[in-house]
Amino acid sequence: MSELESVERPTPLLRLRRALERGTLQNVKRMLAALHPAEIANLLESLPPAERKLVWEMVDPDSDGEVLLHVTDEVRTSLLADMDLQELRAATEDMDLDDLADLLQDLPEAVSAELLRSMDLQNRRRLEAVLSYPEDSAGGLMNTDPITVRADVTLDVVLRYLRLRGEIPAQTDSLMVVDRANRYQGVLPLSALLINDPAVTVAEVMNREMEGIPADTPAEDVAILFEQRDFISAPVVDANGVLLGRITIDDVVDVIREQAEHNLMSMAGLDEEEDMFAPVLTHVRRRIVWLCVNLVSSLTAAFVISLFEGTLEKIVVLASLMPIVASMGGVAGNQTVVLMIRGMALGQVDASNARPLLLRELAVGALNGLLLALVVGLIAFFWFGHLGVGLTLAAALVCNLLVAALAGGGIPLLLRKLGIDPALAGSMMLTSTTDMMGFFVFLGLATWFLL
Amino acid sequence: MSELESVERPTPLLRLRRALERGTLQNVKRMLAALHPAEIANLLESLPPAERKLVWEMVDPDSDGEVLLHVTDEVRTSLLADMDLQELRAATEDMDLDDLADLLQDLPEAVSAELLRSMDLQNRRRLEAVLSYPEDSAGGLMNTDPITVRADVTLDVVLRYLRLRGEIPAQTDSLMVVDRANRYQGVLPLSALLINDPAVTVAEVMNREMEGIPADTPAEDVAILFEQRDFISAPVVDANGVLLGRITIDDVVDVIREQAEHNLMSMAGLDEEEDMFAPVLTHVRRRIVWLCVNLVSSLTAAFVISLFEGTLEKIVVLASLMPIVASMGGVAGNQTVVLMIRGMALGQVDASNARPLLLRELAVGALNGLLLALVVGLIAFFWFGHLGVGLTLAAALVCNLLVAALAGGGIPLLLRKLGIDPALAGSMMLTSTTDMMGFFVFLGLATWFLL
Repeated sequence: MSELESVERPTPLLRLRRALERGTLQNVKRMLAALHPAEIANLLESLPPAERKLVWEMVDPDSDGEVLLHVTDEVRTSLLADMDLQELRAATEDMDLDDLADLLQDLPEAVSAELLRSMDLQNRRRLEAVLSYPEDSAGGLMNTDPITVRADVTLDVVLRYLRLRGEIPAQTDSLMVVDRANRYQGVLPLSALLINDPAVTVAEVMNREMEGIPADTPAEDVAILFEQRDFISAPVVDANGVLLGRITIDDVVDVIREQAEHNLMSMAGLDEEEDMFAPVLTHVRRRIVWLCVNLVSSLTAAFVISLFEGTLEKIVVLASLMPIVASMGGVAGNQTVVLMIRGMALGQVDASNARPLLLRELAVGALNGLLLALVVGLIAFFWFGHLGVGLTLAAALVCNLLVAALAGGGIPLLLRKLGIDPALAGSMMLTSTTDMMGFFVFLGLATWFLL
Repeated sequence: MSELESVERPTPLLRLRRALERGTLQNVKRMLAALHPAEIANLLESLPPAERKLVWEMVDPDSDGEVLLHVTDEVRTSLLADMDLQELRAATEDMDLDDLADLLQDLPEAVSAELLRSMDLQNRRRLEAVLSYPEDSAGGLMNTDPITVRADVTLDVVLRYLRLRGEIPAQTDSLMVVDRANRYQGVLPLSALLINDPAVTVAEVMNREMEGIPADTPAEDVAILFEQRDFISAPVVDANGVLLGRITIDDVVDVIREQAEHNLMSMAGLDEEEDMFAPVLTHVRRRIVWLCVNLVSSLTAAFVISLFEGTLEKIVVLASLMPIVASMGGVAGNQTVVLMIRGMALGQVDASNARPLLLRELAVGALNGLLLALVVGLIAFFWFGHLGVGLTLAAALVCNLLVAALAGGGIPLLLRKLGIDPALAGSMMLTSTTDMMGFFVFLGLATWFLL
């Protein structure tokens, strides 16, 4: 149990903040020294600006680079602002090239140029290769450190080569087999190296089935590939099949986490890199965009309602009931939107199965609509003692749940066709639609039947 | 480019559905044979029931077990329903124990008992060990296949042992070092085995810093540990430090993905295991629960509005404008909720930093409220030519954005304290609050100032 608690998450943050409050900085320093850079990064993200700066200064300079890699882009920018060139150079010295490439993009132009100049030619060339691909592609994710071997040598030669080398990069589960022109041929798993007779050649035991990933493959496709095939590392190749580097599972895990955060955060119009403790004005600037989009949507809804002012004046109880229709449509439609967004993220929804999916959602919407209409209609009837109002409410609810199913299924498909991220705009557009249609149908039916 | 397209996701689904529509089953079979089990699983999840059944029958029986592992619980149950005991036994033969443990829980009692009986004693004991831990704990995630070595032998002995063994389990990046009582001592990375002089002992090169994970550690804590430390595999130990098994990154990736889906899906009151193509009645039953929760919430809002019927009768324009206040509060509050849920999932938010976080959110709410109030107030004034209405709307908007910040920050914290999942209930409770308060504040202010 005591061991379990030491793994529990809130503890380091609580302890750190207590030490900070007491001003026992020596304790803070000791705590930090015992933590893994990724844990320090997590702590830094959990601290308000002043404390964050204080703690950052106390982090062992040797860990600086690793910590910088584990914080989100926004927090990284805030930490980098406090470092001078010398500290930066020390922090980036032992960094993997793919990580360094990510970091460089966050540095001021002058500093990154200076850092590049201080590298040796070979590393600079490699870094430039990684930088030439978008950050969210296989090329941007790759590291240029694979150990390569030829197919025609024996395992014994490989074993002696590795011992001579004296180091194998982290996350290496296999060596890359290439030909003279550095074209990718297959992988030699370390386990094959260990269990086979050293006298056999690489060609006899290598795995030729593992395909090279083209450098321009989108990062999310790489993530799906790793997930489905349980890869630990995979080769990256150019259009001619030449080996460029390898992608490792730790970077893929980051892609998966970021994509997940993106899907969650963008439902609220936020960015996954958002720093909780960014300056208030930064938050204001970012969030008001989304609030303005919603303002336009709710002004339109207000306009729809205003069309029926005459009706509302005569039957004022409609004003109390109309938000029910809108809200139920929004909740039902969002269930469909979320289901579609997940399906799309997993590559399980496209034009070819949209029809049966939509039909199913419509059936669900119709049935739920009828069930809820019965309940709501009865409540409205007994509440206000007015049969017509109850019936109108019930009918409007069924209509709006059908609209919700159609819009919830259709909007994400439409957005993707237009190249807009369904996770970002889907939920907002859906609520817009169900609000407007909810008010329109309910007040429209009331005007028609009750006046 | 052609290589890139072959990685693109929609293609297999489109091709499969085309082949199914044309009735060229031979083609379907050939397509399936070329796919990885995880890809087949993805395809099966994308198909409506009748087609799913047809395709499932055409999958090579040797892949059945692997495919079953990669589908969600719900789809798995639908696939298992069509298999007899013999097929099941064949499918589960080569399965990893941790996977088999997951699967067993989905089988009818009689079938799982029969399967257990047909296993040899050693494997049954191991399986029962895994089954004795909850599915979402380190023990439930672990596999019982680690290769163990003693610290006092030389690397040469280990190398010869591995060659004799002739097989190393997938996802093995290190061997586990144990003492005579099978107590965990550290790990021996395969890379250490490859680069060091075979004459040195395991004790000289093993990594003693990697700690064993207690078997009762929650799965999400295991995921955070793997993410932060870039593990590929990690040892699982009992309370006495005895090695029980190991957890591998492929299972951790599944945990991360499931957790992410849970956070997304539960915002809409859905379960992450939801099958898009479950029977309509199953969907109806599941979704109506959430819709009923929302019904209670919107009936309460309706009640709040009905308190102000007298006011609405006199100034009917208020009915058009009141949804604006509610809707803006909901959107702003959800931004805070999403930020809090992410922070909690990453272990970055707890009681110790809640205060500065809430203050920040309040400041953001106040500023955004003032900015939007100015815009909305002016629009309302020019639209209806009524200064009082514009001022009331502006004041209500500021109030509701403050409520939204407070509720958006406070509700997730409160829910977690009560042991309720903030991702599930947070968003719904927030919208309830901002709807009610929105209507109450706006109509209340109007009654006070304008009548």
